[in-house]
Amino acid sequence: MNFNQFSHEYRDRVETQISLLLPDSETSPGNLHSAMRYSALNPGKRTRPLLVYATGLMCGASAEQLDNAAIAVELIHAYSLIHDDLPCMDDDELRRGLPTCHIKYDEATAVLAGDALQTLAFESLTRQSITNCPPDIQLAMINLLCKASGSMGMGGGQAIDLESTGKQLTLSELEQMHAMKTGALIEASVLLGYYASAKSDPAELAALKKYSRAIGLAFQIKDDILDIESDTETLGKPQGSDVAANKATYPALLGLDGAKQHAQKQYQLALEALAELPYNNGLLQQFAQHIIERDK
Amino acid sequence: MNFNQFSHEYRDRVETQISLLLPDSETSPGNLHSAMRYSALNPGKRTRPLLVYATGLMCGASAEQLDNAAIAVELIHAYSLIHDDLPCMDDDELRRGLPTCHIKYDEATAVLAGDALQTLAFESLTRQSITNCPPDIQLAMINLLCKASGSMGMGGGQAIDLESTGKQLTLSELEQMHAMKTGALIEASVLLGYYASAKSDPAELAALKKYSRAIGLAFQIKDDILDIESDTETLGKPQGSDVAANKATYPALLGLDGAKQHAQKQYQLALEALAELPYNNGLLQQFAQHIIERDK
Repeated sequence: MNFNQFSHEYRDRVETQISLLLPDSETSPGNLHSAMRYSALNPGKRTRPLLVYATGLMCGASAEQLDNAAIAVELIHAYSLIHDDLPCMDDDELRRGLPTCHIKYDEATAVLAGDALQTLAFESLTRQSITNCPPDIQLAMINLLCKASGSMGMGGGQAIDLESTGKQLTLSELEQMHAMKTGALIEASVLLGYYASAKSDPAELAALKKYSRAIGLAFQIKDDILDIESDTETLGKPQGSDVAANKATYPALLGLDGAKQHAQKQYQLALEALAELPYNNGLLQQFAQHIIERDK
Repeated sequence: MNFNQFSHEYRDRVETQISLLLPDSETSPGNLHSAMRYSALNPGKRTRPLLVYATGLMCGASAEQLDNAAIAVELIHAYSLIHDDLPCMDDDELRRGLPTCHIKYDEATAVLAGDALQTLAFESLTRQSITNCPPDIQLAMINLLCKASGSMGMGGGQAIDLESTGKQLTLSELEQMHAMKTGALIEASVLLGYYASAKSDPAELAALKKYSRAIGLAFQIKDDILDIESDTETLGKPQGSDVAANKATYPALLGLDGAKQHAQKQYQLALEALAELPYNNGLLQQFAQHIIERDK
């Protein structure tokens, strides 16, 4: 399967799964459920659930074994976007080409919708899947997602990002911030795909961590480059907003060419990591390539 | 053990446990961890963790078996208070006699601190306790806490509460709202204490649900009464704020005497439920009594 076929098929799959899991807008409190659906199901790249599926399929898992983890990482991502967009945070009015949750609804509903999507992410990992995932593996997966998304992971990265706006960060500080803010959840997506496949080989885990750290970093560098080189319509959010907010970015620190070289280096590191795995890793190779070549 | 001894001892216990679990303020991001500690450890009644301990001890569990569940329900409660106090929600500046989190820190930090406390609540339930709780029971406990705190529980109740400010609710609508907003987490606290004791008898579960629904309702009615009869210093939050906000309350709907009778009726229902259990239920009896007799 090539990456395009794969990403269309499994993007549809995770969206269907999320739609089935989320209460409908008729279920009280209807306004809250409507906001949750709006934010979790609006057009997104679904990078994180696609990583769960790509990793798990590579390891021989069925799609059914991977659904709960795919749902969980996308819901954590969706909750973080709602809260990051709030006026007291990044104050963004546009997300994926549509009004952000607090613009479409109101701030209180946006706070509560984010909160409830986080809760639902963990709930999805407690479900007994039709494939009978052993409970100790389910617990390990929840623990992993907690660590990746909490104060020492994604949430902590956002706190550091807010504190550092307008400050001159070193490359190492910038990488630490992104490793927490976006890298931790990307790594968790890969590892959850692996765990959900009932695999636990330490050498394979180490290679997958190396791979996911490289693509996580590449993903962020590419985001920074797109903020300069793309346009608002393609991005679905205002082009140039990082520069306008005086945010620390890779192009600001390394220059545009330097940032591109840095992304290319991460891509090579990702391929090296994959070469250590005893699986047909074509899909994860194409995934890494897609991350540095995407236009939004 | 009488209720006063019990509540002092186990309030100290859960605060120590939470303090050990939370990263210290020196751990990056220090400001976020400081805000999390400030809100989770400021003086509170600890009603929910005390219910975990009281129920579990009644069923023969050790305190060690109950710690993770006690931590989890208090962290969920702490996160909900931080978010409920935000300017876009209830806009409260005082909580437990101290500045609310967004006043002491800032709004962005308050949103992130609440988010991370929610995550940590679930993480605490994934920990392998020294008592080796079976993983399938841990999973059931996480699932229960998700349902109790998500959009069909506590979070949904807050959404309905916000929507209904200034509206005339019927008694049944008011009870449904409180059953979600405060009742669900109180019920979860009792049931988590029971599950953590490795018990699963359906008749006992039914009696504990009846008990916890009655005390949850009594708790809310008493809160409404205190908002009228107590004073700001004792309450640690502005007396009369419900009336000022034109909120639907039991005294507004039933009159002050009617509300007191309604609370007393819940107390009787709680005692009837306890009588169905084959345990020494003295502590849970005193708990119910404390809930309707407390002065803050």
